[in-house]
Amino acid sequence: MAKTDSTTFVLADAGTPERDVVWSISHTTLGIADEFAFSVRQYSLHGGKQDGVTLIEVDNGHLVFTVVPTRGMSILRVRAGDITLGWNSPVKEVVHPAFIDLQARGGLGWLDGFNEMLVRGGYAWSGHPGMDGDQLLTLHGRAGNTPASRVEVVVDPEPPHRIRVRGRVREATFKFADFDMCTEISTLPGSTAFQVSDRLTNQSDYEREFQILYHGNFGPPLLEENARFDAPVREIAPFNAYAARDLDTWPTYRGPTPHFDEQAYNLWPYANDDNRTTTLLHNAAADRGVVLRYRVDQLPCLTLWKNTDTLKQGYVTGVEPGSGFPYNRAVERRAGRVPTLAAGASRDFTLDYAVLANRDQVTETSEEINGIRAGRETRVHTEPPLQP
Amino acid sequence: MAKTDSTTFVLADAGTPERDVVWSISHTTLGIADEFAFSVRQYSLHGGKQDGVTLIEVDNGHLVFTVVPTRGMSILRVRAGDITLGWNSPVKEVVHPAFIDLQARGGLGWLDGFNEMLVRGGYAWSGHPGMDGDQLLTLHGRAGNTPASRVEVVVDPEPPHRIRVRGRVREATFKFADFDMCTEISTLPGSTAFQVSDRLTNQSDYEREFQILYHGNFGPPLLEENARFDAPVREIAPFNAYAARDLDTWPTYRGPTPHFDEQAYNLWPYANDDNRTTTLLHNAAADRGVVLRYRVDQLPCLTLWKNTDTLKQGYVTGVEPGSGFPYNRAVERRAGRVPTLAAGASRDFTLDYAVLANRDQVTETSEEINGIRAGRETRVHTEPPLQP
Amino acid sequence: MAKTDSTTFVLADAGTPERDVVWSISHTTLGIADEFAFSVRQYSLHGGKQDGVTLIEVDNGHLVFTVVPTRGMSILRVRAGDITLGWNSPVKEVVHPAFIDLQARGGLGWLDGFNEMLVRGGYAWSGHPGMDGDQLLTLHGRAGNTPASRVEVVVDPEPPHRIRVRGRVREATFKFADFDMCTEISTLPGSTAFQVSDRLTNQSDYEREFQILYHGNFGPPLLEENARFDAPVREIAPFNAYAARDLDTWPTYRGPTPHFDEQAYNLWPYANDDNRTTTLLHNAAADRGVVLRYRVDQLPCLTLWKNTDTLKQGYVTGVEPGSGFPYNRAVERRAGRVPTLAAGASRDFTLDYAVLANRDQVTETSEEINGIRAGRETRVHTEPPLQP
Repeated sequence: MAKTDSTTFVLADAGTPERDVVWSISHTTLGIADEFAFSVRQYSLHGGKQDGVTLIEVDNGHLVFTVVPTRGMSILRVRAGDITLGWNSPVKEVVHPAFIDLQARGGLGWLDGFNEMLVRGGYAWSGHPGMDGDQLLTLHGRAGNTPASRVEVVVDPEPPHRIRVRGRVREATFKFADFDMCTEISTLPGSTAFQVSDRLTNQSDYEREFQILYHGNFGPPLLEENARFDAPVREIAPFNAYAARDLDTWPTYRGPTPHFDEQAYNLWPYANDDNRTTTLLHNAAADRGVVLRYRVDQLPCLTLWKNTDTLKQGYVTGVEPGSGFPYNRAVERRAGRVPTLAAGASRDFTLDYAVLANRDQVTETSEEINGIRAGRETRVHTEPPLQP
Repeated sequence: MAKTDSTTFVLADAGTPERDVVWSISHTTLGIADEFAFSVRQYSLHGGKQDGVTLIEVDNGHLVFTVVPTRGMSILRVRAGDITLGWNSPVKEVVHPAFIDLQARGGLGWLDGFNEMLVRGGYAWSGHPGMDGDQLLTLHGRAGNTPASRVEVVVDPEPPHRIRVRGRVREATFKFADFDMCTEISTLPGSTAFQVSDRLTNQSDYEREFQILYHGNFGPPLLEENARFDAPVREIAPFNAYAARDLDTWPTYRGPTPHFDEQAYNLWPYANDDNRTTTLLHNAAADRGVVLRYRVDQLPCLTLWKNTDTLKQGYVTGVEPGSGFPYNRAVERRAGRVPTLAAGASRDFTLDYAVLANRDQVTETSEEINGIRAGRETRVHTEPPLQP
Repeated sequence: MAKTDSTTFVLADAGTPERDVVWSISHTTLGIADEFAFSVRQYSLHGGKQDGVTLIEVDNGHLVFTVVPTRGMSILRVRAGDITLGWNSPVKEVVHPAFIDLQARGGLGWLDGFNEMLVRGGYAWSGHPGMDGDQLLTLHGRAGNTPASRVEVVVDPEPPHRIRVRGRVREATFKFADFDMCTEISTLPGSTAFQVSDRLTNQSDYEREFQILYHGNFGPPLLEENARFDAPVREIAPFNAYAARDLDTWPTYRGPTPHFDEQAYNLWPYANDDNRTTTLLHNAAADRGVVLRYRVDQLPCLTLWKNTDTLKQGYVTGVEPGSGFPYNRAVERRAGRVPTLAAGASRDFTLDYAVLANRDQVTETSEEINGIRAGRETRVHTEPPLQP
C-alpha cells in the first residue's frame, strides 16, 4: 500500500508482481565461496488474478530463471545478459489457477493463463480440446494449472553446488488418474544452461495412458524476421492444411505478420547413438540463440509452432518435444501415439537448455546438429495427416 | 474469532462481512478542512464464499457507496439517509470469483454471485448464455467476476476534493481478447451523486467486437407497488412474448408478485443536444428516487428489467444502459448491435447517478425528462424482435 | 519453511497438512473437570491444492474426528484407538473448492476432491451427472464443495459437556435456489459415538425440490475380505446390471479385487416404532465395526456402494442414506423420489455413528438389527430399475 503522491494511494497492483520477498538464500548465507555466487528468492504476488501466486527466482550469477509453483512448476521466463527466453503474451498476469476455467470457450480456458517460457502439457491428456469418448478434454491438460504440492530448493553441498528447484505436481482423480510428477529445474552457478529433469509416475494399480508436451516458447529477441530453427529432422509433416502452404520455408521465420495466426509442423528428429537430439533457435544474425538437447526415446515427437502474428497478439514460436503431437487424444490414440505407464511405473524426461550468446556458440550448435544428421535424408510429407 | 459466551466460539462468519479494516483515510488524515468531511476504508472479508474479497467503502459525509475490486469494481450498494440503492438478493455473500463457475447451469453460473447495485456485463460478450459459433457464451460475460489488477484511491488535492476509486480490470485471452477497462467511481464530499467513469481499451492489434451492459439494480425502498420508471423513450419493444403481455403498463411496477418472474423492455431513448439522456426511478409517493444521466452515443440501448417477484426471490428492477440488449451475442450481431473497437482504440462510458430525497427533486427530474422528450412521440413495437 | 538439512529447504508441503494451529480450546482452558478431557483445534493448511483450507479437529479423549468447513462441513476421518473411519483415496490433499471444476469430465469433477469419511451430496441435486432438462447436473451436487459461511464451536456449559462443531452451508443462486443448511457434528467427552445433526431450510418463497445423500465411506481396517454389512432390509434392488450379477452376495465384501470397479444396491430398510433403523459394517472377525442409526422417515433410501477395487484405486464401501438413490435427478423424479420443501420449510436429518471396538459390541448391534427386522421378509428385486 504505497502512497504515490500526497493524495493517490495504490491499494493493489498486479503490474508490479515481484512484491514481497518471503524467503531467500544466497551463497553468502550458505557460506559458499564467492566464485559460486548465486541467490534464490521466493516471492508472493498480490492483486488481480495473480493474488496468492508464488514465484521462485534463481539467479546463478549469470542466468536468472523464474519458476511458478502455483502454476505447475512452469518456467515464467529466463534472462541472461540481453537475452530473454520467453515471450510477451497479452496475458500479463501470472494467473492463479482459481481464476482459470479450463472448460471455458469450448475447452480453451488454458489460454487465459498462457504466458510462460515453458509450460508442461499433461498428464492424462495434453492436446487440443475436443471430446474423447464422453469427456471434453481441455487444451493441453491440467498440469499447467495445478499447484505443486511440495516445493523445495536444494543446493548441492559440494562444488559445483548445483541449485535445484523441485516441485511435486499431483494429478489425482478418483477412478481416473493418479499421476505424481516430480519436477526439477536446476542450474550451476555461473552457467548459461539450465536443466529440466522430471519423473512422471503412475501411482495407480492400473496401466494408464498418459501424454506430455514440453511447450517451450520464445519471442524476441531470438524470434525475428529471418530467425531460423534447426534440428536433425528425420521426418516432417505439416500440422494442418494451412501449415502445408508454407512447408518449403518451415525452418525460417517471418517478422510480425498481421493475420498470420499460426502454423505448426510435426517433426521426428534423428538422434545420436545415445538417443539424444539437439534443436537450435537463433536470431537472423545467428549470434544469439537457444539450444535444447533431449532424448528422443523419452520424447519422440517434436512440434514446431510458429505463431508469428503481431507483437501484441503474441509473436512467439514453440519448440515442443512431446510424447506425441498436440492433436486431441482421440486422434493421437488412433495414430498410436498415446503411451501408457504400467502400474507404479515411471518415465524420466530430461531437457537441457542453454542460452547461446555469440556467433561461435551458434555455429558450434549448428555443427553439432549436422553431426547428428550425419548426411541422412529428411522425409517430407507434403500433406497433413488425415484427421477424423 | 470472537468468544460470544462462555462456551460458544465463532470461528468464521461471512454474515458479518465488514470485519477487518485494512486501510483507511479521511479528510482529517489528509489535512482537509472539515467542510469536506469524508472517509475511505478498505475491508477484507473472511469466511464462506467471500473469503479473500476486498471492499472499498467511500463515505462522502452524506452518501456511502461500497466498491468490490475483487468482483470487477462492481458497486455493492449505496446508502444516503434512509434511501438504499441496491437490492436484497438470495445471494447474501460477496462471492469471490474463485467460487463462481460461469459455465454452471448451462452458462448461468453468474447468478451464483449476483447481488450488486451495479455490475458491468462485458467485455467480449455481455448477454444471455448460448452458443455463438462453437463457444458457449456465459450470462453477462466475465467482467463482473474478474478481480481488478490495479486499485487506487485518489482524492483531488484541490477543492472540491473529488474522491475517486479506480480499478483496472483486464480481460485477456491469448488469441481472443485483450481488453483493458479503467473504471472510476467518484463522488464529491457532501454530495448525493456519484459518477461512474470508465474507459474500455482494445489493447490488441486487431479490431475486436465488444459488448457492455451497465446492470444497475434497485429494490425497496424505491421499488414498490406503483413505483414508476420514466425516460424520454423514442422507441420501445418488449424483450419477449411474456413482456409483450404487459406492454401497456411498462413504466409502472407491481408489488412483490408470486410467480411473476421477470419482464424486460428494449428502450431507445431520446437525448438532448449533447446526446445526454435522463432516466428516473421513483417510489409510489414520488418523493424518493434515483436519477441516471448518460450519453446515448456511448450507450444507445436501454434495457428495463422488471423482476417484481417476491421479496425473497429478489424483488428488483434493472435500469441497464448498454451497447446493445442482453440477447445472446449471436442475436445481437444479426441485429447489428455488436460494436467494435479498432486496434488500440478506446471508448468512454460515463454514468451519473444521484439519489433524489424529496418530492421537489423527483418533480424536477421528471420535468428534465419532459424537456428532453420535447413532445416527441414514442414508437411502440407491440411484438418482440424475431428470435433465431 | 523448514531447513531439512544444511542445504535443502522445504518451501511448501501439502503432505504435512496439519501445519498451523490457529485456534484451540480444551477442557483445561474452559475450566472443566479432567473427567471430561477433550480438545478442539483449528488448523490452516498450506501448499498445493489445499492452500487456504481450514480443518477443525475434535479429540473427545477417546475419539478424534476432523471436520472440513472449507469443504461443506465434511468429516475427513475419524479415529478411535486402532480403528479409523474413512478410507485411502488417490486424492491425498484436502482440496480447496477453488481447484475443483464440478463440470470437468462431463460432470465428474467432484471426483477430484473425493476422499472424506462423510460428504453430503446435495442440496438442489445429489445424484449422478447428466442433463435434467437443459442443465448439466454434476455428480453429487455442490454441497461438498461449498465453504461454510459461519462456523462455530460450542461446548455445553453443563455436564456432560457435549462438544458441537456447527457450520452453515448456503446454496444460493438467484432465481434457482436458496438453501440454508445448518450442520452440527457433535460428541460427548470420552464417547465412541458422534452425531451428525443437520437442518436444511428452503429460504425461498417457493416450494423447491431438494436431494440429500449422506455419502459415508469406509475402508480398512473395517473393510476387508469377508467383512459384512447388515441392516434390516425390507426391499433390495441392484443399482444396475453389473450389481445384479452379484446380488446373492450383496452383504459380504471381497478383498481388494483388480478391475472390480463398483457395485451398488438400492435398499429400503425396516425401522422400529420410532422410525429409526440401524446399519452395521463389521470386519471379517466381527470384532470391529461401525454402527449408523438414523430415521427412515428422514432418509427413506439407503445406497450400499461396494467399491472393492484395489487398495490404490480406492478400496472403500459407502453406506449412504438419502432422500433417494444416486441416479440422476431426472431419473429420480420419474421414480417419485425427489422430495420438496415448502417455502420456508425445514427438514432435519440426524445420523448417529459409533465405533464398535470388540466382539460384544458387534454382536449386540447385530441383535439390535434382528430386533428391528423382527422376522420380516426381504423383498428382492433381481433386476435393476428400468433406466431412461
